[in-house]
Amino acid sequence: MTSPSATQDSYPYQHEPIWSRSEKAIARKAFDAALGQELHEVIQEAKKMASRIQQPSDLWDLEYYLTQRRKEIDRKYDFRGSRLTDVLGRLLYENRLGEEDLRGLPEEKMKSIRSFAQFLRDGAA
Amino acid sequence: MTSPSATQDSYPYQHEPIWSRSEKAIARKAFDAALGQELHEVIQEAKKMASRIQQPSDLWDLEYYLTQRRKEIDRKYDFRGSRLTDVLGRLLYENRLGEEDLRGLPEEKMKSIRSFAQFLRDGAA
Repeated sequence: MTSPSATQDSYPYQHEPIWSRSEKAIARKAFDAALGQELHEVIQEAKKMASRIQQPSDLWDLEYYLTQRRKEIDRKYDFRGSRLTDVLGRLLYENRLGEEDLRGLPEEKMKSIRSFAQFLRDGAA
Repeated sequence: MTSPSATQDSYPYQHEPIWSRSEKAIARKAFDAALGQELHEVIQEAKKMASRIQQPSDLWDLEYYLTQRRKEIDRKYDFRGSRLTDVLGRLLYENRLGEEDLRGLPEEKMKSIRSFAQFLRDGAA
């Protein structure tokens, strides 16, 4: 058993990508645009569902829809550096952002993001 | 320790009022009308809130409103015989039904119902 050296291994999670400030700014812009678009879609759908409510079950269907979408969005839009590659990969897979929205990120990160999008595509196939 | 006599005490909860079939029918009609009216109000309010949604926080306000109203209505509209006097008393207190909607119930039950309505009025004062 060797104790970890503070100088050699100061970042606690070796396999987590480190995002520089400028990379985070690029990611943040794409992330916020995708989130804004997704929330806009939920708002439109909620308005449509509400306008069509005729009976109590329609009301609780709307509640259930909102709860599910809120939880899904909370889970999906996680900006922590440790999660960001997968989060952007998922948004790419869902066509909520395009590679052009991530222009400026280093190729190494783009590879990881594309790779996660491909992983999801393969899982869905 | 004496074991309960089946003939003497066949109704398990001595202090619960027993509702005859015809009394239940009267209660059911008033109960259903009040519930229908309350659900109608929630539907109207949800449609209004939805039509005014402009930003995500409005969306989650709508979800919260629906969840709260659903829970409140679930709690309030309890048709079990053991709860019915208090339930009708509450609806009377909230002006969701009038005494005329309960016409046909024996005076003893009306007294209990009025008494619970008065208890709520006193609590609110």
